[in-house]
Amino acid sequence: MNRLSLNQWTTRHWSVPEAVAGCRRHGIEAIGLWREPVAEHGLAATVKLVRDAGLRVSSLCRGGFFTGSTWLDDNRAAVDEAAELGAACLVLVVGGLPGVVPGEALGARVSRDLAGARSQVAQALDALVPHAEERNVRLALEPLHPMYAADRAVLSTLGQALDLAEPYPSERVGVVVDTFHVWWDPEVERQIARAGDRIASYQVCDQLMPLPADVLLGRAMMGDGVIDVAPLTRAVTAAGYAGDIEVEIFNAGVWGADPDEVLATMKRRYATHVVPALG
Amino acid sequence: MNRLSLNQWTTRHWSVPEAVAGCRRHGIEAIGLWREPVAEHGLAATVKLVRDAGLRVSSLCRGGFFTGSTWLDDNRAAVDEAAELGAACLVLVVGGLPGVVPGEALGARVSRDLAGARSQVAQALDALVPHAEERNVRLALEPLHPMYAADRAVLSTLGQALDLAEPYPSERVGVVVDTFHVWWDPEVERQIARAGDRIASYQVCDQLMPLPADVLLGRAMMGDGVIDVAPLTRAVTAAGYAGDIEVEIFNAGVWGADPDEVLATMKRRYATHVVPALG
Repeated sequence: MNRLSLNQWTTRHWSVPEAVAGCRRHGIEAIGLWREPVAEHGLAATVKLVRDAGLRVSSLCRGGFFTGSTWLDDNRAAVDEAAELGAACLVLVVGGLPGVVPGEALGARVSRDLAGARSQVAQALDALVPHAEERNVRLALEPLHPMYAADRAVLSTLGQALDLAEPYPSERVGVVVDTFHVWWDPEVERQIARAGDRIASYQVCDQLMPLPADVLLGRAMMGDGVIDVAPLTRAVTAAGYAGDIEVEIFNAGVWGADPDEVLATMKRRYATHVVPALG
Repeated sequence: MNRLSLNQWTTRHWSVPEAVAGCRRHGIEAIGLWREPVAEHGLAATVKLVRDAGLRVSSLCRGGFFTGSTWLDDNRAAVDEAAELGAACLVLVVGGLPGVVPGEALGARVSRDLAGARSQVAQALDALVPHAEERNVRLALEPLHPMYAADRAVLSTLGQALDLAEPYPSERVGVVVDTFHVWWDPEVERQIARAGDRIASYQVCDQLMPLPADVLLGRAMMGDGVIDVAPLTRAVTAAGYAGDIEVEIFNAGVWGADPDEVLATMKRRYATHVVPALG
């Protein structure tokens, strides 16, 4: 149980101090932070808060979105924040096709050049790595479910993320294995084994069926959907991953519930669905 | 233009005679038929109708859904129908996780054994092939977009479909390349090249963004979404595919429009987005 980490977005209506207090109250030893609430509370204040609480910062979410005009400055700032927080990694969601805005109708300036967008991700990563090296921050490429390929991440499989990471040392560029994003992939167990010490973060949740109208909110508490997280957990463990395990859920029902209830449920479900597979 | 085929579901409110008449009116030489409307019009009557009209039957949709209790009888009947119609192939959509019903909340009897479901598909295919051999029908495995992995097809990538098809002669078990289902796949061009003469059907359409509330209806007319069909068309052509090219669209707006307008638009869009890539 001591590897369980609360990804802050699971309790998105909690501020940073509320989430930190919640972790302490429920005996959770690690937290995955998001940049927006950290900025709201203040970076230095957050650093002090998590240190005083004795929490590990399992990840900072998130850098990436390399298609924006200020992407390099934004990502360098994210690296700096991850360094200050002592985060185990900075999660990178690389962005979709240039000009596609999540939730909005397609405009005239949308690019459909998927191969070009993917090659730009490789270039952006290369531009960012020296700063991560300087600040001793580990970047973590997150492949997203292919249903987000157009609007959020042209990085769609773990194999593709590993191909991108390969030119760099594994302590500098790792990958995120998120059950929701990878469970369907016929190659996933082979790619997890290939990943080995590139695994910078393991995130667990379930997938709702039917998917809700906003597919971004299709994540659910383990046991409430169609994913068997046990084989994925076993594969990640066999690959050598021994870090924190985040529960990250985007779900209208979870967000609307009492966050203390959510943490209690999360602990029960983690004990049932994840712990036995840790061996 | 002579390779353009109307997949009947694009004009789903048309009966078989209406769709056949529509093809003739618009100079379309091939049609992809669906079993339900064919049954409604009568199999023998449909055979006569398409022959008299001089139309090629580019595919019969669809067999598969191997998780149902009557799957083997259903699929043998589908093979027989494809044989009578002289269809170029019988499209197989293999089904999702046992117990998951599209559009319905998850019941207590849902299986989450994805690996098991996939191995059952291989067994079902093996049971069906002798009958297809006997009737000289080509089966065509269709990988579906991973967002349908739980409820419609545990077959999620072209590579996986090819692995399944490999034990059989290519004239007996082929694959469907559908732009909507495969465009996001980082491996797709490599797998299309690998497919070669296994390509039994090429289906084109676009993907809407944002996805509609029912993700099944996310298909769109070429040019209305985020997919560049040109590189996929070039890859399929380079792999040697010279058969009919179906336009198959599940889309509330398309279904609500005047079907004659839909066919006119389809021809224009096909001329713009597909023909130049045929070389």
